[in-house]
Amino acid sequence: MTNRRSIEVLNIVLFLLILLLSSKVQTSFGSQERHFKWDVEYIFRAPDCLEHPVMGINGQFPGPTIRARPGDNIVVELTNKLHTEGVVIHWHGITQFGSPWADGTASISQCAVDPGETFFYRFKVDKPGTYFYHGHYGMQRSAGLYGSLIVDVAEGEKEPFHYDDEFNLLLSDWWHKSAHEQEIGLSSNPFRWIGEPQSLLINGRGQYNCSLAANNGNSSSPQCKFRGTEQCAPQVLKVLPNKIYRLRIASSTALASLNLAIGNHKMIVVEADGNYVQPFAVDDLDIYSGESYSVLITTNQNKEENYWLSIGVRGREPKTPQALTLLNYLPNSASKLPNSPPPVTPRWNDYAHSKNFTKSILALMGSPKPPANFHRRVVLLNTQNKINGFTKWAINNISLVLPPTPYLGSIKYGLRNGYDKRRPPEGFPNEYDVMKPPINPNSTTGNGIYVFSHGSIVDVILQNANALTENVSEIHPWHLHGHDFWVLGYGEGKFSEKDVGKFNLKNPPLRNTAVIFPYGWTALRFVADNPGVWAFHCHIEPHLHMGMGVIFAEGVNRLPKVPNEAFACGLTAKRFMNGNNN
Amino acid sequence: MTNRRSIEVLNIVLFLLILLLSSKVQTSFGSQERHFKWDVEYIFRAPDCLEHPVMGINGQFPGPTIRARPGDNIVVELTNKLHTEGVVIHWHGITQFGSPWADGTASISQCAVDPGETFFYRFKVDKPGTYFYHGHYGMQRSAGLYGSLIVDVAEGEKEPFHYDDEFNLLLSDWWHKSAHEQEIGLSSNPFRWIGEPQSLLINGRGQYNCSLAANNGNSSSPQCKFRGTEQCAPQVLKVLPNKIYRLRIASSTALASLNLAIGNHKMIVVEADGNYVQPFAVDDLDIYSGESYSVLITTNQNKEENYWLSIGVRGREPKTPQALTLLNYLPNSASKLPNSPPPVTPRWNDYAHSKNFTKSILALMGSPKPPANFHRRVVLLNTQNKINGFTKWAINNISLVLPPTPYLGSIKYGLRNGYDKRRPPEGFPNEYDVMKPPINPNSTTGNGIYVFSHGSIVDVILQNANALTENVSEIHPWHLHGHDFWVLGYGEGKFSEKDVGKFNLKNPPLRNTAVIFPYGWTALRFVADNPGVWAFHCHIEPHLHMGMGVIFAEGVNRLPKVPNEAFACGLTAKRFMNGNNN
Repeated sequence: MTNRRSIEVLNIVLFLLILLLSSKVQTSFGSQERHFKWDVEYIFRAPDCLEHPVMGINGQFPGPTIRARPGDNIVVELTNKLHTEGVVIHWHGITQFGSPWADGTASISQCAVDPGETFFYRFKVDKPGTYFYHGHYGMQRSAGLYGSLIVDVAEGEKEPFHYDDEFNLLLSDWWHKSAHEQEIGLSSNPFRWIGEPQSLLINGRGQYNCSLAANNGNSSSPQCKFRGTEQCAPQVLKVLPNKIYRLRIASSTALASLNLAIGNHKMIVVEADGNYVQPFAVDDLDIYSGESYSVLITTNQNKEENYWLSIGVRGREPKTPQALTLLNYLPNSASKLPNSPPPVTPRWNDYAHSKNFTKSILALMGSPKPPANFHRRVVLLNTQNKINGFTKWAINNISLVLPPTPYLGSIKYGLRNGYDKRRPPEGFPNEYDVMKPPINPNSTTGNGIYVFSHGSIVDVILQNANALTENVSEIHPWHLHGHDFWVLGYGEGKFSEKDVGKFNLKNPPLRNTAVIFPYGWTALRFVADNPGVWAFHCHIEPHLHMGMGVIFAEGVNRLPKVPNEAFACGLTAKRFMNGNNN
Repeated sequence: MTNRRSIEVLNIVLFLLILLLSSKVQTSFGSQERHFKWDVEYIFRAPDCLEHPVMGINGQFPGPTIRARPGDNIVVELTNKLHTEGVVIHWHGITQFGSPWADGTASISQCAVDPGETFFYRFKVDKPGTYFYHGHYGMQRSAGLYGSLIVDVAEGEKEPFHYDDEFNLLLSDWWHKSAHEQEIGLSSNPFRWIGEPQSLLINGRGQYNCSLAANNGNSSSPQCKFRGTEQCAPQVLKVLPNKIYRLRIASSTALASLNLAIGNHKMIVVEADGNYVQPFAVDDLDIYSGESYSVLITTNQNKEENYWLSIGVRGREPKTPQALTLLNYLPNSASKLPNSPPPVTPRWNDYAHSKNFTKSILALMGSPKPPANFHRRVVLLNTQNKINGFTKWAINNISLVLPPTPYLGSIKYGLRNGYDKRRPPEGFPNEYDVMKPPINPNSTTGNGIYVFSHGSIVDVILQNANALTENVSEIHPWHLHGHDFWVLGYGEGKFSEKDVGKFNLKNPPLRNTAVIFPYGWTALRFVADNPGVWAFHCHIEPHLHMGMGVIFAEGVNRLPKVPNEAFACGLTAKRFMNGNNN
């Protein structure tokens, strides 16, 4: 054979090999296995121009974006390269139907992965939408362990709206004090609150000691001067005039409730938490931790200009400057800053504005409707409490302290001592005054669970109340694992039976995260049809750390088997040691 | 019965009960079980007057002192109250004969204890002496996890020297940067060295931003003004004139080699690492990390005065002020400061002074003598290296990276893949020039082990060399777990066969830690008669973290059984899951 001939043959062989390999990872109906090999480790990084250790994946912060299609099997081979800390990753908004052990919640769905060990997350994504992932152990989300997970529509299918291109914006907040030190302070007596974040980040980038808009008189900081390669230089959104862009926006903040706005551009909201919503136009968008949205913008403004995109803090008196980036109309230079200042974030306590936005979110016609009736109602009163002098949050007077043995293992293996067998209360005393600080603020810790019959329809009433301090009631965005729920309604003051009549059963939005407003209640409905153990908690990470969550279990006996390797700790490990391995 | 009568009866019952209980914990020959219940958690503390998170035990820093007598069984019920980190505690200087799984070395003798879990350390102490304990996972010793362990002579027995009273001084160094951040820096490329400590601590107390001796013109800092209750106020040594005091001194520094001196007072060295030495007098005492000493002082100076006790850095160019406290002759007020400045620490690189001190340490007459011959000699060359751009330390060109599965479990359970089965080299090429930077500085990581026949006599030659930078060779104090060794000699340059003739076989001191001087060698001999797996490593914590250690195994097959609960991780856990539990 001549050399040329042999190269040709080699090419054919290679082509056939590639064909073979690519068909191998394709499963039926075009769905794929998407394999990722991730190392979690601390890296030095300057998210807001000041360098600190940040929890990264494969040297990246935020972690790599996962992009998939419905039906795809995701395999994340996660290696813990931390030195003394365990780690898990939660896939926020993914239902994990049939794979509850892959939900990535330490003490709930699995044991934390030990340093040096590798854990395989295997799960299917089934619904297009804008999702993200993040650490769910201690306060590792605050430490920077998060990234985006985007599910496009199935090949050949179309979204119910048109757009020409898209951008992905993962929002977060950042402290200069390490997540460890924050966590220690929250667990101390006297209590040390983490305070407001030093910076807000867009895709892991913010500016602490300079401002992009200083020349607009918007800041006391000096004007940022970036070459563009800095770790804290903003990712500019480069757009062409007269096109429609989809912005995917998700918030993995530890604390901050955010508001996003773009100078001169209206936004059409089309998706919330992976569910299509009835499109509506807004000038600015509230987004709470744990939520995601898609909005459409049309680049129909003066094409000689660039425009600000700003995010700012709402719901708490803000002490953090806005994060900014630019909508850069090409071919303008990205260094051409807008003449006008960035959009002003609505006043932090303008709750009328917040409620108006939140209540505008309704399901797109044709979306699944809620069942007309429920089987069981659980009322969850959120209070701030003291336990032996420690400041806590509690639900119906019980502050959640997770057990060392994951619930899913304890239940599946029938271990009696894995958690508190007393059922937590389904409500609170009628005479409790949600408008006043608790008369007896002392509560207890616990780790009992709410068990739902498989397939039962559950209503949850989240009831807000006054915190320990008079005239203070905070916003809490509650996130449910393993499910979407319908948000049937929001109300003021204490929920009462007559409020049921006002529930929206016609077009309530499906969400995985819902906010309770100060002194108000929020009503949710979901079907307990996903065998597993699921956390339901305030997505503000320090609040969860302080006990603001509950545990739901349903149909665990329907799971054929849980993988032993997810449960090599606590009492389940002890059980293995005693020779029981099934 | 009258009330008085019933109280009398009650008293008798109580008395009998107490008798019963106290006899129950007394075992034969007066030895006791001493039970401790410890919670490890982070606390906020100001060791050097600036507040930081510190790893404490039961809210204390340093941890509680254990005090016991030979033959006592110590039980430490250790609960990990950290949120995401594992923990272990090593009992430094205790041989753990028959209990190698209680040596408290993560990845070697046991799995790290998970958050929320409790591990029982059960071991016997058999030899009087001054010991300490500390974390042995990641850099948790640097984080503050340490305390004293003191074994008095058996009841009715006497030390071979007289003293009237004693003080205990546990020395350490302290950084304002968290141990986590230090560890991340050491593991980064580019490499970030931890730098010199901000403060030295005596029993967990130092002064960063003031000096006790400012009025002596000894410092640019202002004079400390303490009420005495401050966490960083010094513990003053209150003495009576014309008495003999024993000072127990141990160093758990992360990095610093120290020198201790007391104004106007000579010290008689009588103990080193729990072994009696031929008494000798010094004006100042060198102490390296991992070492302990007892010295006697006589309070025969002008009793109208108080005297400084100072510790300062040696062996590295010091950037850390001395730590100070007072020898307070009663009834003088403790606030009466000495008129003269504190003792000056010998120049950091006066190695002649260091060697003179170290070589003066000889075994007390009647101490166990070394066997005249050895069965096997291992030569360990310490070099600084680069691996894929990361800065490391290596032994015979292998940098130690501990495996996720503890060696003791892997060996005992016969797991093939727990660690590297290739044996590490027993020496280094003859032509290696220890006086020059390595010609090829690249080395590899590994976790192979040195296996010794049970009862064999092993000689170890620790060979120092030039680091990566020209004309730099550092001091390394090497600590052996599970054993004392005889220090047969120290020498300059490269060890050669003719040096054997100069070995001291007559009265070499028994130690558990021995130093190698720059460009020198140190020869050790020990009997491999303690079934288990034992770390042998540089006691400088960042050096160990960078790979400066080796693993010795001996007679593991002689252990009847290892407790499963020490091995619920890695491949041993996997083995349990597969139904093997013995």
